[in-house]
Parts: sequence; C-alpha cells; structure tokens
Amino acid sequence: MTVQQSSDLDARAVELDRSHVFHSWSAQGALHPMVLAGGSGTRVWDHSGRSYLDFSSQLVNVNIGHQHPKVVAAITEQATTLATVAPATAHLTRGEAARRIVERAPGGLDKVFFTNGGADANENAIRMARVHTGRDKVVSTYRSYHGNTGAAIVSTGDWRRVPNEYSRGHVHVFGPYLYRSEFWATTPEEEGERALQHLRRVIECEGPTSIAAILLETIPGTAGVLVPPPGYLAGVRELADTHGIMLILDEVMAGFGRAGEWFALDAHDVVPDLITFAKGVNSGYVPVGGVLISGEVAATFDERVFPGGLTYSGHPLAAASIVASIDAMSEEGIIDNARRIGADVIGPGLADLAERHPVIGEVRGTGVFWALELVADRTTRAPLPAALIGKARTELLARGLIPFTSDNRIHVVPPCVVTDDEVAEALAAYDDVLTLLDEEL
Amino acid sequence: MTVQQSSDLDARAVELDRSHVFHSWSAQGALHPMVLAGGSGTRVWDHSGRSYLDFSSQLVNVNIGHQHPKVVAAITEQATTLATVAPATAHLTRGEAARRIVERAPGGLDKVFFTNGGADANENAIRMARVHTGRDKVVSTYRSYHGNTGAAIVSTGDWRRVPNEYSRGHVHVFGPYLYRSEFWATTPEEEGERALQHLRRVIECEGPTSIAAILLETIPGTAGVLVPPPGYLAGVRELADTHGIMLILDEVMAGFGRAGEWFALDAHDVVPDLITFAKGVNSGYVPVGGVLISGEVAATFDERVFPGGLTYSGHPLAAASIVASIDAMSEEGIIDNARRIGADVIGPGLADLAERHPVIGEVRGTGVFWALELVADRTTRAPLPAALIGKARTELLARGLIPFTSDNRIHVVPPCVVTDDEVAEALAAYDDVLTLLDEEL
Repeated sequence: MTVQQSSDLDARAVELDRSHVFHSWSAQGALHPMVLAGGSGTRVWDHSGRSYLDFSSQLVNVNIGHQHPKVVAAITEQATTLATVAPATAHLTRGEAARRIVERAPGGLDKVFFTNGGADANENAIRMARVHTGRDKVVSTYRSYHGNTGAAIVSTGDWRRVPNEYSRGHVHVFGPYLYRSEFWATTPEEEGERALQHLRRVIECEGPTSIAAILLETIPGTAGVLVPPPGYLAGVRELADTHGIMLILDEVMAGFGRAGEWFALDAHDVVPDLITFAKGVNSGYVPVGGVLISGEVAATFDERVFPGGLTYSGHPLAAASIVASIDAMSEEGIIDNARRIGADVIGPGLADLAERHPVIGEVRGTGVFWALELVADRTTRAPLPAALIGKARTELLARGLIPFTSDNRIHVVPPCVVTDDEVAEALAAYDDVLTLLDEEL
Repeated sequence: MTVQQSSDLDARAVELDRSHVFHSWSAQGALHPMVLAGGSGTRVWDHSGRSYLDFSSQLVNVNIGHQHPKVVAAITEQATTLATVAPATAHLTRGEAARRIVERAPGGLDKVFFTNGGADANENAIRMARVHTGRDKVVSTYRSYHGNTGAAIVSTGDWRRVPNEYSRGHVHVFGPYLYRSEFWATTPEEEGERALQHLRRVIECEGPTSIAAILLETIPGTAGVLVPPPGYLAGVRELADTHGIMLILDEVMAGFGRAGEWFALDAHDVVPDLITFAKGVNSGYVPVGGVLISGEVAATFDERVFPGGLTYSGHPLAAASIVASIDAMSEEGIIDNARRIGADVIGPGLADLAERHPVIGEVRGTGVFWALELVADRTTRAPLPAALIGKARTELLARGLIPFTSDNRIHVVPPCVVTDDEVAEALAAYDDVLTLLDEEL
C-alpha cells in the first residue's frame, strides 16, 4: 500500500465515523476521533503507521496487550469451528472458560453466569442478590462506575447516573478516599474506620432488612483508582454478614491482572457472595462479562427459575478467548509482571515525578493500575481545571502516548505485559507534559 | 479422533457445564443441556457427530446459517489485525458496518450507536427518547420481549418482567393478536383498529406529554410471531406524531432477513425514530447490537452529552462480521431466499399441516419467521399443555430437528439460507410429531 493509500484509509475512517457512528458519553458535534488500525503488545497504530504507546489499555481493558498471538489463534480456531451457539446448550470451551475463572476465584464461588460485558454482569448480580434475599435495595458508592444499563447505571455514583435515574431501590454512600476524605480523617486507618461507620449508619437508617446487596468496585477505577485502606473490605463483609446482605464486588476493571492479582480482592481479606468481571478476563478481544456465584446464591436457583438471560451468554468466541487469555497469563507470568512492574518500576517512577512536579497532588495505585491526581494547588487540593487535563491529553498524544484521563486525573494503566523500557519511555513523556502543566500553575 | 474420544468430549462438555455454568432463564437443578460442537448452514452437530437440522436458528439469531465462510473469514482477518479498540476511536471497519446498516434502513436514520446486544440497544434507544423528549414514560405491549437489563426487562411484557420490575415509568398495553383478541375483534381490520383505539385511550389516560416512547417489536417474536395487521403500525406512527412521542421499533429478532426483508418494517408503511437491532445483523457470530438513530434524535446530542456508553461499543470483530454478513446476504440473495421460501414453501407447507392436524390452532408468519399455535381444543382455543410441548420438543430432537418452542407454540425459524429440501425434511418431522400430539387430544 502506498503512503497516499494508507492516509486515505485514515481519512475514510474518520469520514465514515463522523457520518454514521454515534459515540459513547459524548456530545457528537465536536468529536475528532483518532484512527486506530492495528496493534501489538503495548503499541497501537493507525493506517499510516503513526504509532502510540498505549498507556490507557484502550478503556483499561487490554490487560494482555494488543494482539496476543495465543488469544488471536484461539479466536480464529473457534471461529472456524463454531462461532455461535445458544446458551441453553453445553459447550465444551464455555465450560473450560468457566472452570479456569472458578479456579482463580476465592473458594466457594463455583459457578459462572456469562454476560456480554460488565454492565449486564452487574445487572445480573443485583438480580441474583434481590431474588436470593427477597429484598430490594442496593447500596453502592458515589465514587463508582458499574455500567450503562438500567440497574447498573443507577448503582453508578458518578455524573453518568444522574440523567438515568429510572430504577428504584438504589442508595449511595461515600467510600474511603483519604486524599479527599468525606470523614475528616487524616490517616488511612481513620479513613477506613470512619467509612465503615458511615456505611453502618446508612444501613441502619435505610433498614438492614430492606437491603439486598452492597455493590462495590474492589478498587474503584474510573473514580480514581481508590485502593481501599486495610481492613475496610473485611469490615464491609462483616457488616453484610451481620445483616444478611449480599456483598457484590465489581472486578470488571480491577480483575485479571490490572491490580497485579487475578482478582484485586486477593490482596484484601474478603470473600464476596458475587463477583462481576469483564474487560481483563479476555482483554476485550470479544465482548464478554460475567458473574461468579457463591454456592449459597446458586442454590437459590436450583429449583427456582433464574429470571435473567441473554442470547450471547457463554458465547463460544468469547469463551475461547478467555481460555487462551487465562492460560497465556498463567504460562507467561503476566500477572506477576503486572505486580512486579507496579511495585518496582511504575510506583517508584510516579513517586519520583510527584517529588519534582507540584501539579501532582497524590500518586496511588498497585499493579498496572495507577492514578496521578493533578491539582491547581497542593495546599487546597483544588483539582486541575478540565482545560489543562485536555492540554495534557493533547501533549501526551503528540509525544506518542495514549493516556487515560478522568476528571482531574491521569490514570497510568498500561497492559500487564508492559516492559520496563516502555514504562521508562512513558515516564519521560509524562515528565515532559507535567513540566508544561507546572508552568500553568 | 476415535469414537470413544469424541464421546468423551461430549461427556466432558456436560460435566463442565453442570459444574460451573449458570444458565439463562432456568432452574439450574434439572438441566440436561445438549452438546453442540460444530455446524454448517442449517445443520449443527455434537463431538460424536450426531447431527441436527437447526430450525431454531439457536435463539432465532443465526440468520445467515452456521459457519458462513465469508463471515468466518472476516472475523479471522480482523482478529489477526486488531481484535479490540476503544469506542472513542475512529475505526474503519466499524464505519463500514454502520454505513451498510444505514444504507438498508429507511431514509433519515443515518447514525448507528453500537451496543453488545439487543437488551442494551433497547436501553440506549429508551435513553435517547427520554433525553430527546424530556419525558419519562415508555409504552410497550404485554406480549413482547425486549431484553434482560434494567429498562429493557421492564419494557418486556411477558412473565420475565414481573420479578424484575425495579424501573419506573413503564406502561403496558395490549397489541393486535387476532387469534386471542383482547378487543373482541373478528377480522384483522377490526383487530388493528381496536388495538389502535386501545393504545390511543391509554396514551390519553397516561397523559401524552408524559410519554417519551412507544416501544414495539415490529413483529413480536418470542411472544408468538404476531405479524401486525395492515395499517396498525402506520396508525401507531400517527399517534406518536400527534403527541411528540418517539416511536422505537425493536427489530432485534425480526430484522436482517428473518421476516424476508432487511427490516420487518419494510413490509409496513412506517418509519420509526429509532430502530434497535442485534441477532441477524451478524447472526450472533460476535456479540453485538445497536440503535439506528433519526437525524432529529441524533441532533439532540450534537451539543449535549449523550449519557450512555460501553467499553465494547463498535467492537472491531463485531463490525467485521457485520460487514461480511451484510455483504454476503446481498451478494447471495439470502434475504430473497427467506422471502421466497416463506411464501412458497414454508407457508404452504405449514398450512397443509394445519389442515391435517387438529392440534394446530393457527399458523402465522412471514419469511423464515413462523409460529404454529398448538391447542388442546380448536373451538375453545385452549393452549396445548406445557407437558405436551415438552414432548414435542423431545420427539423433534429424536428426529434430528432442533425446534424453537415458546409457551404453547412451535416457532419455525430456520436460517434464511434454508433450502427447499431441508424444509421438506423438517415438515416431515413436524408432521410425525404433530400426529403424536393429535393422538393426545
């Protein structure tokens, strides 16, 4: 292909996009989407060969990196065998996918209900909790994102919930977030204890027997990579047990390597009743999500019909990609790499940036799941204005790095396969752009 | 592979399924799922080579038939190029998929919002209608199915709605269904007029300015392949226009060849504001759905942020499978085949069965979208008991045909590529089993 032809393809992609494609969470009028046409590992590129280091993992989902050959081969093989099948059948690869997920989950969560993504995973987890408990209410946090469908979007705490509040029975609380504490706390221990006390008080005031589920992201992701303080999740588990409330942990973003563990909850002393997953389970190579179900909840539906389902539940292509992805992650030490590079390279590298750039208010994270909280003023902790986050985004792209930005933050969320050299390259780009931001203060 | 090895794979598929897979819309205790491992065209088979004629199209979604080589090749090629990309990018194949869908839709619906399936397509169509009109309520019918997530399941009319009614603003009406008229009608014209009058009265009583959308399956599918009488949908359009209500037509099951047209609405004099689709658009080879959006609704979101979105919106594998599927359907006359075989072979064949089998109360349908309404008594029209439908299912499977059954009906819903010979083979199996049912009356 000539240079002209390649650049024509990029132009054509934009033209078709602007003519016919309606985009998520956006005003459509002023979009200028970048073109992507290929990728490998931590890199992606357009038709003309302009290449980027992907420190967004797209939407924090390409945990295994782009175009992992084993996952591509599995999709190709399954596509040539049987691309789709009804969920009511038994499908060998679907069973193998479920088994691999169950084997990596805490003991007692032995069944998987497959969905199309994280949103309907949360829909179905909430459904199971409601039928199992015979109660209606769902408690979740303001700083959360659980998906865009009916119950998932109302469980969500951020602004996206507000125009979509058509479901009943949802209650929101504040979770632990020491840097912007809602509890006047000054230490992680105090933040955790007070967040628990706040949750306890809301549960008491709502009426514990009206509450079906507490739904939490193990590590709230888009809300700011808010790693919970030690003891918090164990305390939530205890509260849930006291009142017969189901604990649903949303591992859609945090799971399958992102936090340097198979499940982010592995680093906390907690076993939930239900776990929801998507994204990293197959790096989004094929749309899929699901719910891991405890024996107790599953037993509720042994004789009773489960009132939920979908055409593509347990889709063979998705199943094949899950099997290959989990096997490759195991065989190639990809989870270990995420844990190591987080602790030894990304964490220290970002801490070093924070020492040198006043625009950084806080660095937090684990594995390949980090946030730089950017502030206009370190003393007041006033968030950096949106225009400067936009500038950071533009400048990082100009340096060949795709960032993930959210509110006043840059999330540093590369694939789990990211190398030390790629982190160094990214840190240099961040360093450059943070210097520009410092100058704006 | 030896016979023993093949049969071991079937046993292993069942074992893994029963250990680890949680199924849609079922009590889990007593499931005996059939194993499927491969397929081609209208046939599928297990590991041991036991083969079936698929007159279910799985969940009425494999419109192009199993393992269409062009669609498989497109998935394979896209998988090896770029399996996934964030929705905020411009992706050439996604744009090509959107263009093809738009080109086959009625004029004026120029943009596509891609989702993961039919449920979240309806979620997002409802969302668009609500934001566009500034109103809350959604009117749909009791005999309908719109998906399993928050707003979609409450829009649904059948039993699956009842345990899931956690969303507000949903109103249900009766639609036209002459065989079991809710309006004491005796002709199709009367049924259509009275159904419109009923809808008009409910709209007036609910308050027209409170209603965002009327959501209808163009041809209610799982509810019984209820082809609307002439003039009904045009009358609904007129009612919607009178009151500034958005008309959403759900073409998830009826679209892309099922009704012998690209869209089932093509055979009716109606252009809706929003069309939802999934299933047949790519025959479910990759999970996908979407919303076709009118210029008027789309313009609402030119400057205003659309409050919906999802990680896998416009997924490249799904897009590639849509492009290949639509192209193959066009090039190979697959829609024409569905129309012809429905009018010339399936329709007359089922009418012949109805003449000879008293258990058939009514035959209705179009294209490859037919229902046999089975009754215990033709005079009272009492539905055939569930146990006999179960028996019909078992006996058809024993004759190597996968049926689609729903309530007291057998839906005759093969892929659009079904041949005259395959229909003849299926009619013979139905004939046999209907004889058994006749004997039970």
